[in-house]
Amino acid sequence: MSDVKEVLGLYSGDIFKSIEDNLSTITPNTLQEASIYLTKAGGKMLRPCLTLITSEAVGGSKEDALKSATAIELIHTFSLIHDDIMDDDDMRRGMPAVHKVWDEGLAILSGDTLFSKAFEIIVDCENADASRLTKTIGTVADACVKICEGQALDISFEGRYDVTEEEYMEMIFKKTGALIASATKAGAIMGGASDEVIDAMYDYGRLIGLAFQIQDDYLDLASDEESLGKPIGSDIAKGKMTLIAVKALSESEGEDHDKLLNILKDDNSSQEDIDTAIDLFNKYGSIEYAKNVAQSNVSEAKELLKILPESASKDALMDIADFVLERHS
Amino acid sequence: MSDVKEVLGLYSGDIFKSIEDNLSTITPNTLQEASIYLTKAGGKMLRPCLTLITSEAVGGSKEDALKSATAIELIHTFSLIHDDIMDDDDMRRGMPAVHKVWDEGLAILSGDTLFSKAFEIIVDCENADASRLTKTIGTVADACVKICEGQALDISFEGRYDVTEEEYMEMIFKKTGALIASATKAGAIMGGASDEVIDAMYDYGRLIGLAFQIQDDYLDLASDEESLGKPIGSDIAKGKMTLIAVKALSESEGEDHDKLLNILKDDNSSQEDIDTAIDLFNKYGSIEYAKNVAQSNVSEAKELLKILPESASKDALMDIADFVLERHS
Repeated sequence: MSDVKEVLGLYSGDIFKSIEDNLSTITPNTLQEASIYLTKAGGKMLRPCLTLITSEAVGGSKEDALKSATAIELIHTFSLIHDDIMDDDDMRRGMPAVHKVWDEGLAILSGDTLFSKAFEIIVDCENADASRLTKTIGTVADACVKICEGQALDISFEGRYDVTEEEYMEMIFKKTGALIASATKAGAIMGGASDEVIDAMYDYGRLIGLAFQIQDDYLDLASDEESLGKPIGSDIAKGKMTLIAVKALSESEGEDHDKLLNILKDDNSSQEDIDTAIDLFNKYGSIEYAKNVAQSNVSEAKELLKILPESASKDALMDIADFVLERHS
Repeated sequence: MSDVKEVLGLYSGDIFKSIEDNLSTITPNTLQEASIYLTKAGGKMLRPCLTLITSEAVGGSKEDALKSATAIELIHTFSLIHDDIMDDDDMRRGMPAVHKVWDEGLAILSGDTLFSKAFEIIVDCENADASRLTKTIGTVADACVKICEGQALDISFEGRYDVTEEEYMEMIFKKTGALIASATKAGAIMGGASDEVIDAMYDYGRLIGLAFQIQDDYLDLASDEESLGKPIGSDIAKGKMTLIAVKALSESEGEDHDKLLNILKDDNSSQEDIDTAIDLFNKYGSIEYAKNVAQSNVSEAKELLKILPESASKDALMDIADFVLERHS
């Protein structure tokens, strides 16, 4: 796993520099500062690294895909800024959220600026084939629509405790999976892959994206507070519909079901309540179930990589698929 | 002038239908409704009509440019939704603003959705030349960045009464001129114009865009409350920096300057104060000055149209340039 962090480190420097260069022209200064702020907060840069690595894995270069990768990281950052306003989250990446450092207006605007810059950057490729660029824009814009739809779905789940597994999977595909899928698809397009390979790389991204989100839900219960940067069981305290909660609610009956429902509905769950909920999750096998779903997505994703020739970049994609489940934060 | 409204009516139906078709796939329903809401509120559709008419004027068809035109109207709508949140404006086009009908979160999200859809729609053109599409995306994305920068500048003017004419012109170019310029440029690109004509059409759009905004400032003083949909002199009451106010502040001295400054700074200006400010604007010729600036922009814009062959579409562009100054609302 530390290998994967090292591999990402080999690519993230280029992306970081590209982001800095591209955002340095924004005026006035306040808007530039608010737009750059979160990109400097030490994110993993998983999405843009996937774009560069995929470009190499299909026979292109990382240079071919650098602008698209930069754009995808900016879109990810834009969505975090706007989500934090909507969800009223005060902290992000261990730092105060953009709307807390500045205000809501400037946070909306800096998100919009990153979004605009993203599309400006993708087409700012003099030597690139125009049809590759339009395909890349197509998949990135499609992911953006899905991110919005996923966030709207997520908001619509609040106060609902009858969310089905299908609804939950649609939500996380749109909110998290689609952008990761478009990151790997963009890498394949810009690297010059065939349509068959492009489709396979989209599915690879989609599957590890789903696994990534399910693992996030799992870590909320199984990690430690220091690695996670928030208290264990905070999803339970907030009554958030995760795959684990959805499954336990659908499997449990009678007293157990009522007990779980009450804890999820309670805005002031105690540590004892949270422990009770985790016991119920275990009793109905929903933690195990979620881990299995994530694991099978990762296996399927790795299977898809068989379409690629052997290379160090292909190996990196294999490792990243495993890393999604092995990470602790 | 009624001719211009008739001409716009010939094009706006196609755009309206295209918007409806393209937004009908958005889910969940609430997000779709919030995204469509303002597009149905009877805007003039000036920007997308300019795209279609320019495409025809350079020898293309309106079909060539329909998707780009649709995208530009969606971007305009997105910017209105987000601006209304930032400026805390409750009404838009005579209807409650999106964040008043729903809430701020859904308003942010519906703006983001329209923005995403815009880029998805531009590239969704199977028969279009890919290099035209990437050029169009370039100009539209550039306009989006400028809209954000212009809004940030506008916000930064609040409480400042030493804004220069140059700063004011930069702000309105970015906030209003750039998208109108990209609307005419996109029409020229998609219609297959040469680079020289594309540049001329960008400048035409920029110049009528500036005139459009200056006329807006003028109408705030010279229209009637019914046509305008808000009280006369509301910019003075709000202490807004318009070209008229900027010019009067820079020309006046001593007692007059102090009097004007105090009225602009006062959050509770009376009707008498507003009348005094208008008298001072007239005394220092700033209303006349602004009218002249707008008129000379329109003349320059019409001059640029000489590069186009004679056609009904060229005539329409001539008429639209005049219409910008002749409109009463």
